[in-house]
Amino acid sequence: MNRLQATYRIRASAADIERRAAALAVEQSVEMPAAAVRDARVLAEVVGRVEAIAQEDAEHFRVTLGLALETTGYEAGQLMNMLFGNCSLQPEVELLDVHMPDQALARFGGPRFGIAGLRMLVGATSRPLTCSALKPQGSPPEVLAALAGELAAGGIDIVKDDHGLADQAAAPFARRVEAVQRAIAAANRAGGHRCVYAPSLGGGPRRLREQMRIVREAGVGMVMLAPMASGLGALQELAEEGLPVLAHPALGGAARIAPQALIGKLFRLAGADAVIYPNHGGRFSYTPQTCRAIAEAASAPWGPLAPALPVPAGGMTPARVEEMVDFYGADVILLIGGALLEADDLRAAARAFVARVHAMGEGR
Amino acid sequence: MNRLQATYRIRASAADIERRAAALAVEQSVEMPAAAVRDARVLAEVVGRVEAIAQEDAEHFRVTLGLALETTGYEAGQLMNMLFGNCSLQPEVELLDVHMPDQALARFGGPRFGIAGLRMLVGATSRPLTCSALKPQGSPPEVLAALAGELAAGGIDIVKDDHGLADQAAAPFARRVEAVQRAIAAANRAGGHRCVYAPSLGGGPRRLREQMRIVREAGVGMVMLAPMASGLGALQELAEEGLPVLAHPALGGAARIAPQALIGKLFRLAGADAVIYPNHGGRFSYTPQTCRAIAEAASAPWGPLAPALPVPAGGMTPARVEEMVDFYGADVILLIGGALLEADDLRAAARAFVARVHAMGEGR
Repeated sequence: MNRLQATYRIRASAADIERRAAALAVEQSVEMPAAAVRDARVLAEVVGRVEAIAQEDAEHFRVTLGLALETTGYEAGQLMNMLFGNCSLQPEVELLDVHMPDQALARFGGPRFGIAGLRMLVGATSRPLTCSALKPQGSPPEVLAALAGELAAGGIDIVKDDHGLADQAAAPFARRVEAVQRAIAAANRAGGHRCVYAPSLGGGPRRLREQMRIVREAGVGMVMLAPMASGLGALQELAEEGLPVLAHPALGGAARIAPQALIGKLFRLAGADAVIYPNHGGRFSYTPQTCRAIAEAASAPWGPLAPALPVPAGGMTPARVEEMVDFYGADVILLIGGALLEADDLRAAARAFVARVHAMGEGR
Repeated sequence: MNRLQATYRIRASAADIERRAAALAVEQSVEMPAAAVRDARVLAEVVGRVEAIAQEDAEHFRVTLGLALETTGYEAGQLMNMLFGNCSLQPEVELLDVHMPDQALARFGGPRFGIAGLRMLVGATSRPLTCSALKPQGSPPEVLAALAGELAAGGIDIVKDDHGLADQAAAPFARRVEAVQRAIAAANRAGGHRCVYAPSLGGGPRRLREQMRIVREAGVGMVMLAPMASGLGALQELAEEGLPVLAHPALGGAARIAPQALIGKLFRLAGADAVIYPNHGGRFSYTPQTCRAIAEAASAPWGPLAPALPVPAGGMTPARVEEMVDFYGADVILLIGGALLEADDLRAAARAFVARVHAMGEGR
């Protein structure tokens, strides 16, 4: 079976949908009139096919295309291009879901650590994991490092950069990563903790390569990337570098790709071990159903791919711990940023948050 | 002046817009409650500011934020993150425009060749340039090379890969680029032409680096990238490599960023010498006004940045040449793909297209 199935929602009339679906199949494959394709193999094996059309409501149809796997080259950026490259420019088209055979899934790679690997890394056999963020950007490295030390001493499993931290003058990547990792390592030694630092990577090939060099040299245990800002191709290559990868959804919200497909499936397929997304009830507007769908897409069985940990985030507070574990179960990373930083005693606030999460144990 | 101005359209009520705008200013900067920021410098210089709010209609407001330039690190991927990273996840927010001081524009870089450089490269002093695409993907390198040779012999200025060509089994990047460049070079020598090949680059850091090596070794004269698939950071670094860069809009249409801001301004800022976008009246739905706005944003004076050439594309035909040059003027690259490939005699079809464009001379 050498095709993937991509499911779209298309706004069209009943009279027009067949033409529209056929046009999409061409657009997302050879992008030229099929009549002008002279190569019999290309016609048979490469041109996209309409596999199903179902009416959703008066104005919308659900269309499944069979797209030739060979067009992806099994490269994650090219996969995005073939799934939604040109039709991202057609406002009546939305990408809903992607399916592919197990061998294709395996070729893309998926998470190398997955839930089991992350649990082993931080020493959390069955409870939810905890995560906090270093903020605000603009702070010098020493300040960020001090925050990191307090969070690690408070028992936080993963300390990540605020996704706005990059390579700015206030805290250049090299100095920040080295200072933060040193502070976390010291807190780990002093308190018997296993906190892992996840710095925020970004930029073009040269910058990313340099950042990975710095990350290795400093002994950092994880990396974070925004795949829609840096490309899913960069995520896929990063996942081959031997460190767990945390995916951030920045720049990905407007994509007109269903969040569970983008964040839950495609980021996971390209190698994210954990996927951050806006939780319901916070500063963003995903519904509980969407959040559950993202979490399930990230962590449910999917061929040979390891499961990834969902990381609901955005405006979360320690008071919501029980609610979130009730909702998601124990296979979740609870990410709290600003709410901890508002406390007068950061270490104590972190400890209290951590204690609440550990008390949840295996969830309900 | 150390801030850029980012203008958004926000859907909100009059009663709520001030709160909403203030929240956006925080979201696109420190992403934590300003009350919890202890660093006076960060509060004064890094936290975003609301600079203007204007009502557009009953439900929409135009909001201008002043965002600290330092948060961008003058890195184009990070600029996208700060402009629209988190608020891409807030459906009521759309990015409309970006302004920044001349020194900041210069630091991002902009086009290194620009219109003058591209004209010099292909030897077209004042007329519109011509471009065609190698299709369909799935064809072996020899077939694509033969097409390229015919297009070059027909006088086409730029032959680009179909954006679906990447590193697939049917025509792996190295073999394709070498074969196509050889064919174009041979046609150039035989006919005294100056056709330039623009292969499609993509993937993570390791792939991009390898592709650039192959491109240099083969003597290729231009490269193409889809910045929303590969990251604007990759575009910015590519622009430093000494070859002109052609930007493709794949994956960029859904961004909820006004096309003239994204394709016309931001791609140019990050270093694109020419920007492809869907022309009105083709397979996509941009209006003439949007197309004109994109073309103007790409090529109008903008501080110290060189102008970029607009490349309207998608379903174009030779019959539309006069209409397009009337609409855009002579500073344009006319991109025609499938319509040429439908002809029985590709070289003759290319020649006829080229002759029509040359006859337009300096346009109206």
